[in-house]
Amino acid sequence: MITPLKSPQGDNPHIAVFAKVSKNVLIEAHNRIKPFIHRTPVLSSSLINEMVGTNIVFKCENFQKMGAFKMRGAANAILSLSEEERERGVVTHSSGNFAQAVSLAAKKLGVKAYIVMPENAPKVKKEGVKTYGGDIIECESTPQAREATAKRIKEEKGASFLHPSNQDEVIYGNSTAAMELLEEHPDLDIILTPVGGGGLIAGTALASHYFSDNCKVIGGEPMEADDAYRSLISGKIETNESFHTVADGLRTHLGDRNFPIIQKHVEKIIRVEEHEIINAMRIIWERMKIIIEPSCAVPFAAVLKNKEDFKNKKTGIILSGGNIDVENLPF
Amino acid sequence: MITPLKSPQGDNPHIAVFAKVSKNVLIEAHNRIKPFIHRTPVLSSSLINEMVGTNIVFKCENFQKMGAFKMRGAANAILSLSEEERERGVVTHSSGNFAQAVSLAAKKLGVKAYIVMPENAPKVKKEGVKTYGGDIIECESTPQAREATAKRIKEEKGASFLHPSNQDEVIYGNSTAAMELLEEHPDLDIILTPVGGGGLIAGTALASHYFSDNCKVIGGEPMEADDAYRSLISGKIETNESFHTVADGLRTHLGDRNFPIIQKHVEKIIRVEEHEIINAMRIIWERMKIIIEPSCAVPFAAVLKNKEDFKNKKTGIILSGGNIDVENLPF
Repeated sequence: MITPLKSPQGDNPHIAVFAKVSKNVLIEAHNRIKPFIHRTPVLSSSLINEMVGTNIVFKCENFQKMGAFKMRGAANAILSLSEEERERGVVTHSSGNFAQAVSLAAKKLGVKAYIVMPENAPKVKKEGVKTYGGDIIECESTPQAREATAKRIKEEKGASFLHPSNQDEVIYGNSTAAMELLEEHPDLDIILTPVGGGGLIAGTALASHYFSDNCKVIGGEPMEADDAYRSLISGKIETNESFHTVADGLRTHLGDRNFPIIQKHVEKIIRVEEHEIINAMRIIWERMKIIIEPSCAVPFAAVLKNKEDFKNKKTGIILSGGNIDVENLPF
Repeated sequence: MITPLKSPQGDNPHIAVFAKVSKNVLIEAHNRIKPFIHRTPVLSSSLINEMVGTNIVFKCENFQKMGAFKMRGAANAILSLSEEERERGVVTHSSGNFAQAVSLAAKKLGVKAYIVMPENAPKVKKEGVKTYGGDIIECESTPQAREATAKRIKEEKGASFLHPSNQDEVIYGNSTAAMELLEEHPDLDIILTPVGGGGLIAGTALASHYFSDNCKVIGGEPMEADDAYRSLISGKIETNESFHTVADGLRTHLGDRNFPIIQKHVEKIIRVEEHEIINAMRIIWERMKIIIEPSCAVPFAAVLKNKEDFKNKKTGIILSGGNIDVENLPF
């Protein structure tokens, strides 16, 4: 059981979210981060289209700086801080892509980044953060210890806390991947993303709402971590008892900033089995010759599982990231 | 010891090669194959540039149709046949990328493709050929049996024999990758390719000769199969006693059609060790998030080994292919 994290921004998400966001807010976020991100390519594969019976375009955030869409949200969050805040640095707790994204975005902006990581985090993850200049603060491997340590750094250093998925600026930054995709393919009927902490799908849903006529947003989620699927049914943020999924980036749950957006703007969430994730990942590796991480394969697995739903629908998939230990593959 | 294959086109290579080829011949080849190939993207990585201390652009033939540059040569060879020849089909012996390239190019043109493969060829290779519609003719696993079987098919069916690397039309087709690269980056100082049968580096050398002012062409070759390196020293086509290299696409030797071009237009060949190939492959996988096969990593391994030679030289690398068994990786 994972303890929900406190949102850094108040307790009345519906009012706050829908008062603040607008088309302009997203355009401003995009303009703000443009100098710090790649405009990633959009690829397609005729073999995959034949296999699925539809046209799929893949927005390749695995080619993003540091290898994942997280760079967009991290850059926007840091760029949205005041000069004084930036001088005191930023802090986050993550052992995944967000830690690297914050480290790199902070480095590019001359901001100090404190990254709270469990002491038993894989060496490859720690090395990644160090490469990008992040300052690692080790703690015990419990959610409580991570939160307490981040809080301590926040107080000691005056650093601004950045949440990997449940923070408005992060969500708006994430929106920009779908904005770029819709700019190139305004006729998309559907965009899919994976669902982990909810920051990517919420951002994508906002982009679709403001920048398309009628493009639906669908999430893909592992059956083994189907908290978002259950949250949409129950109407409250559900958590997972355990996370037995190869999709390591999705071993988390929604937050009070992104859940209202997801409730309002996401069409549905499709759940997939572990073997379906691995198969989807393998097809993308073999057919498209690009490296994606397991979490990133989940939306394509959802399409393969529900081919009929996507027939003759022009479909976009956000390939969320490509950071994987090549010595430890699921096939 | 591998027995050299007979060239399909005469015995006086110097005269024949330099009489036939011209800038126009290459432009015509490019126009001929354009509808059947991808214009592959050219990628770069700031992390890799920092690591090497130069600007490298990678021409991604791993994203080519069927996953390798071989599609270019195969398409040009088949498109150069007469109507009557096409009706009688084509035959080749290959257990690698050229078999798949001929199968796919032939299928797209409605031409029958006979692919001679050793009966013990890996299942994955046979499946690849079948997927693209090639008709597999099995034979014993010796060069003699492969040649005899191809000859028999040629006689029985009247099929035209296509050589994977030692045939003018194949070499001209291969040129088009470097032509596209030079069109986008006319200021390249160096282009590198792997050296196996010699068809890619010969084509690249012709493209550089006709479409750049002063761009040098350098080959990368495994130390364990350094026949081309030795051939340039001895002035005659050398072979290998054995092929203990992970670069399976380079386990072959030059031919009498491409050797004169290589002698005249290639600057030098750099040899690399097995661990250097695997390290280079891993860096491209991890940093660029793209899948390349071991043979394809050899030129980048050569750059890493000789950084000083490439310092401040704008360098292009042709990433030759991305067909690999993901269950059988070298790391």
